[in-house]
Amino acid sequence: MSLQVVEAMALGRGDVFDSRCPARGVLDHITSKWAVLVLVGLRSGAMRYSALRRAIGGVSEKMLAQTLRTLESDGFVHREVVPTAPPQVTYSLTALGEEVTTHLAGLLEWIDTHIPDVQRARAERASAHGG
Amino acid sequence: MSLQVVEAMALGRGDVFDSRCPARGVLDHITSKWAVLVLVGLRSGAMRYSALRRAIGGVSEKMLAQTLRTLESDGFVHREVVPTAPPQVTYSLTALGEEVTTHLAGLLEWIDTHIPDVQRARAERASAHGG
Repeated sequence: MSLQVVEAMALGRGDVFDSRCPARGVLDHITSKWAVLVLVGLRSGAMRYSALRRAIGGVSEKMLAQTLRTLESDGFVHREVVPTAPPQVTYSLTALGEEVTTHLAGLLEWIDTHIPDVQRARAERASAHGG
Repeated sequence: MSLQVVEAMALGRGDVFDSRCPARGVLDHITSKWAVLVLVGLRSGAMRYSALRRAIGGVSEKMLAQTLRTLESDGFVHREVVPTAPPQVTYSLTALGEEVTTHLAGLLEWIDTHIPDVQRARAERASAHGG
């Protein structure tokens, strides 16, 4: 790590712009579309794996399992196994996960409401380049 | 597109949870760590390609060029060529880009200030699994 990053960490904060800072790794985990959808999907409460998979259109078994593992190891998601037969596995947000998800939910809400603007921008650009 | 998505689009909003909705594509573009860093990096004003590359640790020529092209085509970034010799190319946020970047900047700030919490969560998990 650079001296700058060591200093930043000593002050209790990271620097995502520095590729050697641990904050970059967290950015990498959170900014995957699947992580965003899992975190925001869990916002309404604990969910079983199968329910999550249904809620997130297009996610594969492998990507969902991998995303949940990474989010669990970063402390954003809590995995609970209820020892019934067969055991029930549920996922929920930790306190840390709830905090970060607030920012992501704002982003998703923005995308959902502004998609017509993006499509207009694309169309304008296409016609400008075509003409 | 599903009827639900067509209805959502008719109401002027998308649904990122539906893989067939255009909003999912925008989510995909924005949630790449490079896109996040480019957008937040441009927040302080227009920048030349070389300055952006220096500001974003670890980004390759290819990834930066590709990220800028995608962000430009979504209408988040404006590319300006000043016809000097050699021509100067600068990048800046559009009004749409500034809006979405507000959400991303909050997320980055959160990551930078909470990285010690994530590291604590990881350590606790590692020791719990080790013991």
